[in-house]
Amino acid sequence: MTSSSSEYARIVDLPAHAGRSVRVRGWVTHVRSSGKVAFVVIRDGSGILQVVLVKSTVSPESWERFGTLTQETSVEIEGEVRLDKRAPGGVELGATSLEVEGPSPGDYPIQPKEHGIDFLLDHRHLWLRSERQRAILRVRAEIEQAIRDFFYERDFTLVDTPILTAAIGERSGLFATEYFDEGNAYLAQTGQLYGEAAAAALGKIYCFGPTFRAEKSKTRRHLTEFWMCEPEVAFNDSNDNMKLQEEFISFIVARVLERKQKELAELERDVSKLETVKAPFPRIDYNDAVKILQSKGSEVKWGDDLGAEDESLLVEGADRPVFIFNYPKEAKAFYMKENPADPRTVLCDDCLAPEGYGEIIGGSQREDDYDRLLERIKEEKLPLDAYGWYLDLRKYGTFVHSGFGLGLERTVAWICGLPHIREASPFPRLMNRLRP
Amino acid sequence: MTSSSSEYARIVDLPAHAGRSVRVRGWVTHVRSSGKVAFVVIRDGSGILQVVLVKSTVSPESWERFGTLTQETSVEIEGEVRLDKRAPGGVELGATSLEVEGPSPGDYPIQPKEHGIDFLLDHRHLWLRSERQRAILRVRAEIEQAIRDFFYERDFTLVDTPILTAAIGERSGLFATEYFDEGNAYLAQTGQLYGEAAAAALGKIYCFGPTFRAEKSKTRRHLTEFWMCEPEVAFNDSNDNMKLQEEFISFIVARVLERKQKELAELERDVSKLETVKAPFPRIDYNDAVKILQSKGSEVKWGDDLGAEDESLLVEGADRPVFIFNYPKEAKAFYMKENPADPRTVLCDDCLAPEGYGEIIGGSQREDDYDRLLERIKEEKLPLDAYGWYLDLRKYGTFVHSGFGLGLERTVAWICGLPHIREASPFPRLMNRLRP
Repeated sequence: MTSSSSEYARIVDLPAHAGRSVRVRGWVTHVRSSGKVAFVVIRDGSGILQVVLVKSTVSPESWERFGTLTQETSVEIEGEVRLDKRAPGGVELGATSLEVEGPSPGDYPIQPKEHGIDFLLDHRHLWLRSERQRAILRVRAEIEQAIRDFFYERDFTLVDTPILTAAIGERSGLFATEYFDEGNAYLAQTGQLYGEAAAAALGKIYCFGPTFRAEKSKTRRHLTEFWMCEPEVAFNDSNDNMKLQEEFISFIVARVLERKQKELAELERDVSKLETVKAPFPRIDYNDAVKILQSKGSEVKWGDDLGAEDESLLVEGADRPVFIFNYPKEAKAFYMKENPADPRTVLCDDCLAPEGYGEIIGGSQREDDYDRLLERIKEEKLPLDAYGWYLDLRKYGTFVHSGFGLGLERTVAWICGLPHIREASPFPRLMNRLRP
Repeated sequence: MTSSSSEYARIVDLPAHAGRSVRVRGWVTHVRSSGKVAFVVIRDGSGILQVVLVKSTVSPESWERFGTLTQETSVEIEGEVRLDKRAPGGVELGATSLEVEGPSPGDYPIQPKEHGIDFLLDHRHLWLRSERQRAILRVRAEIEQAIRDFFYERDFTLVDTPILTAAIGERSGLFATEYFDEGNAYLAQTGQLYGEAAAAALGKIYCFGPTFRAEKSKTRRHLTEFWMCEPEVAFNDSNDNMKLQEEFISFIVARVLERKQKELAELERDVSKLETVKAPFPRIDYNDAVKILQSKGSEVKWGDDLGAEDESLLVEGADRPVFIFNYPKEAKAFYMKENPADPRTVLCDDCLAPEGYGEIIGGSQREDDYDRLLERIKEEKLPLDAYGWYLDLRKYGTFVHSGFGLGLERTVAWICGLPHIREASPFPRLMNRLRP
């Protein structure tokens, strides 16, 4: 095999080469032949190209090689680029020669038929090559760049918080690993506490990286490893925090609608359901949420956390995400700020995606009172020595601050309209799935 | 405490408010007083502001509060913005009132004096607030956005590779964690193998996330947790790969020089040493490198890997990074492609930063021959069942492909001119350091 990328054209760039001869490389997805004319569809990661071979105009060797092509054979093809409005990408290639770079035996596992999900996940390294999976991965990548750009343009400083931590964050469902002579390290479930320290240095920060939950949940909304984006803003209160969330989500959705139309079409996503996602979002106080739920027949009582079914009932008919805010203290994490107007509750919000996708963001104003935070740490029986540094943030110049966490895969699943979160991750990790 | 961010101005935005009254919030860094006029310097994460209080023009309460200010007290100040070329940021604030939001006791640990490194790392959550650390974190964030933008603009698809893996990648120095009924999971040392699978689906991809090494190294170039950026490109050979690397590094350095001048000045970085970092970079064949080293008195022999001292000798006098390419097979990883011109070597490169910073990138063309790769896996005694999916990439349409890994913290350390990599990470993880 020889190679020098400058001699080759990418499929996406072919319209600019119309009328000229080029060499392309890629993998065969389909072949068909009428005996004298053969059609080969290839993909190279940038696009899809239909190649036409006319038996009378190519060498006997090229024609013979055509006969050996199977799905996923990697090929190098030389030919003339012809504009053709009916073709995918607007061009086809009139081949003058065809070479096989890497053959593919006839037993390629992923066939154009129904496969069971376990089989597909066992072959995730190959399943990624299918059109639907490629479309999802591209939407995911667009969402991630949109997230980066949103915060960069607004002068947030990216601060990567550590994965390996000493007994910090939420407590159940931790993955542990031996850490030299330091005892156990735990894989971070959140970067928030570190983000708070960084916000006191840099004002507006965010982290965005993998987080881990060693939970035995088998739902369509849980992974053991997932990416989470967590901004933290000095001097933002809970209202500012919700405002940032609705601007953020609106930005992401608009960006995908603008730049990933082709992929959304491939996924048969009803984009009219996304076009209405614009700030501001409706805000429902937890007290009202309980009344609404009860009026809809739910048995939820004041003080309960809301489950997936409750969440679905609350967004019923909504054309954009909905905030539920100021939950009871017992239902939420220790670091949330007590609500001065109703100390049974905390200043927080969940942002629920429409169409039954449920919570995609949890946010809160943080408890900035040293004594009250200390009390909450003791109530929750958290290891005080591990939280000394976190208390320091309230000791030395405490400050109003708020932040939130957006779950990437849940957001991807919602925007792509996926039935299960596992397709939103390139290599999903589930309770029973660590490979490939 | 009350708060609504819309009523407040960020320090960086103050020049646009010249002549008007604004409210700002931030933390006190310095105070001094002449008895009738007081000066308070505050920072809010966006910038530094000098505030002037004239005793005769503020309320007695505000003047009294001034007397209580200590380093890191968080304050809210109202006053008039005045243009002043001598002031940091070009403005100062003539205060009309001052309120204390969060006091700070006199025992703030980080004082403007020399502290030992262990003390500073123990107080990393506060140390981050110092000017030098903030400058480093901002340069780091700029480098990370530059990385994202470089690949986004070039139509690479971001693919997040998993952290939790089943016995894959390099083998020594792995952190292990119990994974439900699946036995041990290991924290990824690289995303490359997954990146290769994704490159066959999407052509040009990159991953960029945390990676882990459970190694007992105590050098100024090693962390146990660090971020690595790993592009993988279908149809790129080793030459294309080096071209991509030099363009990538030149892009990053130019971006930091353009947008982070203030931070580089704060770090007293000699930017003339960065301004020469432009592609192409010198390329030295391993064979020549050994001869050069021997001529300089090194005892290195053909077949040895190159150590930090050798690397320093090779870049001596260079005004930009230097590639050393095509190392002996024994010195490098099993997945690198055998060099057809000299099968004792593999098609790979290390990219060495100037000024003694050493390797910041390792790259290679990947072995695309099924049988040769299988042989190498067996020679290295790797668990064959864990590599079945990786071999599949050579079974179904194998393809020329190459990629590399850039160590983020090493790159930050070089560009910032840091003596030790630990300052390049917000919360560095070292053998003996898991907190805060």
